[in-house]
Amino acid sequence: MQTLEEIQQLVNDRIDLYIKKNGRKNIYEPIGYILSLGGKRLRPALSVMSSQLFSDDLSYSISPAVAIEVFHNFTLMHDDIMDEAPLRRGKPTVHIKWNSNVAILSGDAMMIQAYQLLADTKPEIFLPILEVFNKTALEVCEGQQHDMDFEKRSNVSIEEYLEMIRLKTSVLLAGAMQIGAIIGGADKTSQKHMYHFGENLGIAFQLLDDYLDVFGDESKVGKQKAGDIIADKKTFLLIKALERAEGDDKDVLQYWLGKKPKDPTEKVRAISAIFKKLKVDEDLLEQVNRYHSAAIYELKKLPVFEERKASLLQLAEQMLVRQH
Amino acid sequence: MQTLEEIQQLVNDRIDLYIKKNGRKNIYEPIGYILSLGGKRLRPALSVMSSQLFSDDLSYSISPAVAIEVFHNFTLMHDDIMDEAPLRRGKPTVHIKWNSNVAILSGDAMMIQAYQLLADTKPEIFLPILEVFNKTALEVCEGQQHDMDFEKRSNVSIEEYLEMIRLKTSVLLAGAMQIGAIIGGADKTSQKHMYHFGENLGIAFQLLDDYLDVFGDESKVGKQKAGDIIADKKTFLLIKALERAEGDDKDVLQYWLGKKPKDPTEKVRAISAIFKKLKVDEDLLEQVNRYHSAAIYELKKLPVFEERKASLLQLAEQMLVRQH
Repeated sequence: MQTLEEIQQLVNDRIDLYIKKNGRKNIYEPIGYILSLGGKRLRPALSVMSSQLFSDDLSYSISPAVAIEVFHNFTLMHDDIMDEAPLRRGKPTVHIKWNSNVAILSGDAMMIQAYQLLADTKPEIFLPILEVFNKTALEVCEGQQHDMDFEKRSNVSIEEYLEMIRLKTSVLLAGAMQIGAIIGGADKTSQKHMYHFGENLGIAFQLLDDYLDVFGDESKVGKQKAGDIIADKKTFLLIKALERAEGDDKDVLQYWLGKKPKDPTEKVRAISAIFKKLKVDEDLLEQVNRYHSAAIYELKKLPVFEERKASLLQLAEQMLVRQH
Repeated sequence: MQTLEEIQQLVNDRIDLYIKKNGRKNIYEPIGYILSLGGKRLRPALSVMSSQLFSDDLSYSISPAVAIEVFHNFTLMHDDIMDEAPLRRGKPTVHIKWNSNVAILSGDAMMIQAYQLLADTKPEIFLPILEVFNKTALEVCEGQQHDMDFEKRSNVSIEEYLEMIRLKTSVLLAGAMQIGAIIGGADKTSQKHMYHFGENLGIAFQLLDDYLDVFGDESKVGKQKAGDIIADKKTFLLIKALERAEGDDKDVLQYWLGKKPKDPTEKVRAISAIFKKLKVDEDLLEQVNRYHSAAIYELKKLPVFEERKASLLQLAEQMLVRQH
């Protein structure tokens, strides 16, 4: 069996080959750029690891896993236009470095190429893989729509928020796991376990992201601290705090929401203090544990020898002991 | 054999079913909107007619043909953002009626759904179809890139222009014909004939579009007369005129290019007079005939009974005796 590092290497080699084949001209230049910004390639690595649970032959799982990474980066390229994000991983976003038209068009080309990569697998299992991929891709678009809608709404419930992050973030991980499982030869039941493993892990991961944005170690988070608070983003923490706040706490929250002070220090301090006071941070970590346990439970139920699951379990643990 | 009208009906029914299944909510509403703006559904109709050259069973060719129409409308949705076009078929474009973010995201969803429709065919021929579709789709993106690049350049040659319209407009028709042929069971040689039939027909069609923009009957063109002249668009007519103009003619062209008078009547009159004087309109119609003949020649070479080709030949003729 291949280790996580070996799998990440296989994935990176395939991505490098893809970038090289594209060349660096016209619509292909921003594709190479966004893919070269780095990242841990967790989605493709997890997809290949899912495949490896059921088969030692990984030759058919690398390209489809890279298709998922390319699709993911396509969504980042288009989302950054919509969110008017200036930076991604500390570098200018494509629509800033070039312009919006370039980011639209290169993103479109990336999506088409994701399908080319997806098709580079065993022909006899391509149609079921495509079905999962298409369903997932549409859900990711729906998730982005919800996310944008929430900005204009004052009342978003925790349930709606969880459904949004499920669509926007976690179904792609879920789809990646199911696609890996299909390529590995898993039966329908095992495919479902892998799907729900990815789905729950993805929600846990995104909730932890919300936590780290406010309470994480800034030097390790790699982006502006408490950006969610500064932007009044309706995350788990804010939604829960708004539900729970009374009296002065409510007044303080209402006072700061919508305000964009030049120096956001006081706003961040005041709102994160209320989060702590109302213990919504604890609620959040409880939810992280709940979804994480649900993910692990899916893996436990899988009719595969425990030693084959070891590295995937280990990675799932690592993902949730990030920078806090 | 089905007539053109019967085929158009089959295509429209499938499109209606697709729109109905999507519903009219969120990201799906603009998809229904743009597809309901009308159009003669020439691309899907031609794709199905290509299939019918080789087989009477059209049940597998309708959905892939609709996939091509959906993909085409996806490119319109995104191109309209890039070109800042306010109107499409006399109605507000999606980015105007909603906003750019909606047009980006609904367009993305449309492209994914194009792949879903494409996969709704005979499984054993899906991979070759997908290959043609992906290659074509990428070329369409490249064509749009060329088109945008040309706006910033002063020296565009006729060869570059023809290559741009080949990519932006004609390869999709070419791909549609090849996909139809594959589904009908055509061999590789026949597939190539159908591809080149579509490619040449598409170029002839686009060149005629350039002609009609300036010299067509306004009431039948359905858009602002001489919009290309007003926008200084580097079409066949302008490129050729700039190549050929000398002395006063050159001065008049240079005088008007870049000028955006409130009332464009005089600009349009002056430039179209020079087109006539330099006979670039005749050159253009000669090229239309050349590409049209090349298209017909591909169809003639096809090893299929002539009576099967009749309706396709007739449609190809009709397409080129439009509103002039």
